[in-house]
Amino acid sequence: MGALAEIADILGPRLSTGESVRALHGRNEAHFPPTLPEAVAFPETTAEIAAIMRACAAHGLPITAFGTGSSLEGQHLPIRGGLSLDLSRMDRVLAIHPEDQIAIVQPGLTRTRLNADLRATGLFFPVDPGADASLGGMAATRASGTTTVRYGTMRENVLALEAVMADGAVIRTGSRARKSSAGYDLTHLLVGSEGTLGIITELTLRLHPQPEAISAAICRFASVAAAVDCVIAVIQSAIPMARIELVDETMVRGFNLHSGTDLPENPHLFLEFHGSPAAVAEQAAAFREIADGFGVAGWQDATTTEARNALWAMRHNAHHATGALEPGKRTLATDVCVPISKLAEAVVEAQDLARAMGLTSAIVGHVGDGNFHCGVRVDPDDAAEMARALEFSGRLAETALRLGGTVSGEHGIGIGKQKYMAAEHGAALDWMRTLKAAFDPACILNPGKMLPPEG
Amino acid sequence: MGALAEIADILGPRLSTGESVRALHGRNEAHFPPTLPEAVAFPETTAEIAAIMRACAAHGLPITAFGTGSSLEGQHLPIRGGLSLDLSRMDRVLAIHPEDQIAIVQPGLTRTRLNADLRATGLFFPVDPGADASLGGMAATRASGTTTVRYGTMRENVLALEAVMADGAVIRTGSRARKSSAGYDLTHLLVGSEGTLGIITELTLRLHPQPEAISAAICRFASVAAAVDCVIAVIQSAIPMARIELVDETMVRGFNLHSGTDLPENPHLFLEFHGSPAAVAEQAAAFREIADGFGVAGWQDATTTEARNALWAMRHNAHHATGALEPGKRTLATDVCVPISKLAEAVVEAQDLARAMGLTSAIVGHVGDGNFHCGVRVDPDDAAEMARALEFSGRLAETALRLGGTVSGEHGIGIGKQKYMAAEHGAALDWMRTLKAAFDPACILNPGKMLPPEG
Repeated sequence: MGALAEIADILGPRLSTGESVRALHGRNEAHFPPTLPEAVAFPETTAEIAAIMRACAAHGLPITAFGTGSSLEGQHLPIRGGLSLDLSRMDRVLAIHPEDQIAIVQPGLTRTRLNADLRATGLFFPVDPGADASLGGMAATRASGTTTVRYGTMRENVLALEAVMADGAVIRTGSRARKSSAGYDLTHLLVGSEGTLGIITELTLRLHPQPEAISAAICRFASVAAAVDCVIAVIQSAIPMARIELVDETMVRGFNLHSGTDLPENPHLFLEFHGSPAAVAEQAAAFREIADGFGVAGWQDATTTEARNALWAMRHNAHHATGALEPGKRTLATDVCVPISKLAEAVVEAQDLARAMGLTSAIVGHVGDGNFHCGVRVDPDDAAEMARALEFSGRLAETALRLGGTVSGEHGIGIGKQKYMAAEHGAALDWMRTLKAAFDPACILNPGKMLPPEG
Repeated sequence: MGALAEIADILGPRLSTGESVRALHGRNEAHFPPTLPEAVAFPETTAEIAAIMRACAAHGLPITAFGTGSSLEGQHLPIRGGLSLDLSRMDRVLAIHPEDQIAIVQPGLTRTRLNADLRATGLFFPVDPGADASLGGMAATRASGTTTVRYGTMRENVLALEAVMADGAVIRTGSRARKSSAGYDLTHLLVGSEGTLGIITELTLRLHPQPEAISAAICRFASVAAAVDCVIAVIQSAIPMARIELVDETMVRGFNLHSGTDLPENPHLFLEFHGSPAAVAEQAAAFREIADGFGVAGWQDATTTEARNALWAMRHNAHHATGALEPGKRTLATDVCVPISKLAEAVVEAQDLARAMGLTSAIVGHVGDGNFHCGVRVDPDDAAEMARALEFSGRLAETALRLGGTVSGEHGIGIGKQKYMAAEHGAALDWMRTLKAAFDPACILNPGKMLPPEG
């Protein structure tokens, strides 16, 4: 009996080989060509995943986890065929412990559904990538978002995991305690491993108290350099920013086209402050004082909940708003992260390069972390434009490395950025290969991802 | 030529086989019997460590890193003989980048020396275990301290590492960027690995702005349960505590004996608030309001720098102050960490158990993290008392696991806690062994530590 027949025995009708289901699991929001799995599994329990894994291991069938399909470097694409493991039926909140500020959830749950469930508890889960991604996928790609400057990435907010390993073993890493010095940190080895070392089947997440008061604002600058220099000064002050997002002039144009707003087409910072009412007012005033030193050209408060929600909905729609810039094309989304002292240099270089290469590139950035994204509009059928866009992305990665940064702050490696792994990691890449070989000797876990081919 | 002869060729007189030097590297502040290395190496560069490692690998000679010798679970003891690698000559600050809020340091540098160097920059490094430990040792044991509730452990504050691996390869993990999604998180695999996967030779540390204002206070309660319930309520509020330390009645007695203070012998919380002057005042007032609900029995502000320094010097002397309780004995120091909702239960159980077993045990705790230490006074020559103390430690570990916690919040595993690894990690322990076998197949890196013997 082949692997798929064995898995069909386990799942019954929850194993699908239908063309449309396979197509749905082989497409992506980025620029990669569709690649269909042989079949799609819809497990409902960890025990089912363990049994599926044993079948895959016995037959050498590749297995690639699928959350919501929103990854931007092709992480969920089954490029070596095999099984797409769709975790959407494992989407429950298993427990909320408000006194411990943790939630235990299944990997298919999305971040907004978790926060909806948390509303009455006075707690929230802060990590917010653009998409309403699954929490398992967010952990697997070490996602972050607009609140990372204050609350951290998935690395800081995943306390413990359950995972199914390549031989079908089910392990639990970490505990409900906030910290531990007991043993190797397998939790943070799995976080960011893009499904290549194990499949995450349960997450214990750290929650945070909803701030007593929140205020937001939009702040306009004459140049990107002025905006970024302001960010650097603010981060060096002790103002505990909750959000500090750069939106460049091209991205503002995209927002205006997509949301019908009429923001002046200048670089902006979108800001949020969390704390007591007095603290929030004090932080905003301290920020403005610093910003004035960088020639702030406009300031707009968003104090009501509606105004604030509108502001962040606009920001979270950046991917779609980029699409409004040159309708009919696709977006090649790339992200890098640099030391904050090099941020202005990197952003200005990215803008100049796109201009010189004749590309439309919109920049949004979690600039408090030194992280920014370029969304480059490309016509996939225009080979020359696609080549230019990829060259742009490559040169941006080189810039990030030259400035002491990383080729990805949050989108990950997947398919698209393997070519930079050797340059970023040098000899450490050998030890990543050692790790992969030890944990997945038959290479069935998301094969072809993250680690570049040898030689 | 044997390994030591090869190493002598590399280091000249910086390889010592003298009895007193070996004895100095074989003793410990905990209850473990002294174990002498065959020789002690004093390297000055990463290249020397790589050459030493190649010699050790070629001859199967064990190599155990030594920082300041302050580890509490025997991590630095060369229990399989071989080489003690003393990193005290690699104690330089290599670079401080204030605008990026990072410092690049050698592993032998101690935390207080780093902070002395940082004073003029407006930045500080927060992690403060009791001892003035080396930063390499702190990373290797995933240390934390009194400020972890606000600023995190070594896990959150190590951004990048250089390390020498078991075959002599020199690798760099992480970057100067604040976050990355590029590849496996080797940085956080090495942090907490107790020198069993590689030797840390350089650290890039995350710094924090010195708060504009600091205020401290001591708060007295009628019972440990009241104090701990107050902590739980404070953590659930959004008060951003910088420090919140429990000191039980026995520990207070030790402080009074050691420091000549006359604190009432009741449970206390030692507190610190960081922020703007207004924020600090607001936080302290909000704390007091919550504390009043738990029947606070006394409150003493420590607003001047001198009063604050005296307070925290007293707290950091807990290990020595415990020694004042029954002079002539040694301290068996143990630590556990539990979900914060279980903290009162765990602390009261520890107190009752010590009393029932006729042991003098002083408790101090980083209670905002759910972490606390028991310092049990033992006469190493009294076998029955030593057995009781070890049984106490074991039962405390079992309590921590039963309550969903971990057998060590910050001291680590070393020699002393291997026996609980299977109970804490279950099947995950197999994958820790897989990792160790892949990274150090000949088992020369701190052999006999962390992972319990198989079978």
